[in-house]
Amino acid sequence: MELITLVIYDIPDDDLRYQVAKYLKSKGLKRIQKSAFAGPLTSAQRAELIAGLKKLIKGREANVQVYPLTPASFNQRVVLGVELKYEEEEHVI
Amino acid sequence: MELITLVIYDIPDDDLRYQVAKYLKSKGLKRIQKSAFAGPLTSAQRAELIAGLKKLIKGREANVQVYPLTPASFNQRVVLGVELKYEEEEHVI
Repeated sequence: MELITLVIYDIPDDDLRYQVAKYLKSKGLKRIQKSAFAGPLTSAQRAELIAGLKKLIKGREANVQVYPLTPASFNQRVVLGVELKYEEEEHVI
Repeated sequence: MELITLVIYDIPDDDLRYQVAKYLKSKGLKRIQKSAFAGPLTSAQRAELIAGLKKLIKGREANVQVYPLTPASFNQRVVLGVELKYEEEEHVI
């Protein structure tokens, strides 16, 4: 069963933050805030995602949290305010 | 029934971001990332929180998302990386 998987992250380093965003996009998740992505994943896909994230941030200053949401949780979410535009983050070298 | 309520926000303005963080703290939520708080709330408390947030960010450039999590969702969360330290944000005037 697919669950909406919510990923929120806190990564001070621009380059690593960009890499994580790119990785989440490559896994089919959509950006819902500057530092949050969400999308439907099976539990196997979620396990793969978690393993990939672990590898990416290993030893770095980063905090990433992954929440599998039931359809009820996701449908009961409340979104307030405006939809902010997120430019593609620059790849800072 | 209390559900863990997850609040994530994206607020470019320092002062408004500080006000929102302070408000969430005043409602008993705990900071789990720079721009994310969580804590148990009844549905009445959650409704009050949402009304308060709506008022705070009205007309401002802000996106705030509120997710009521089932105990299963919350217990299945995965936290990767390090626990970052968050200094109290300065109240920028």
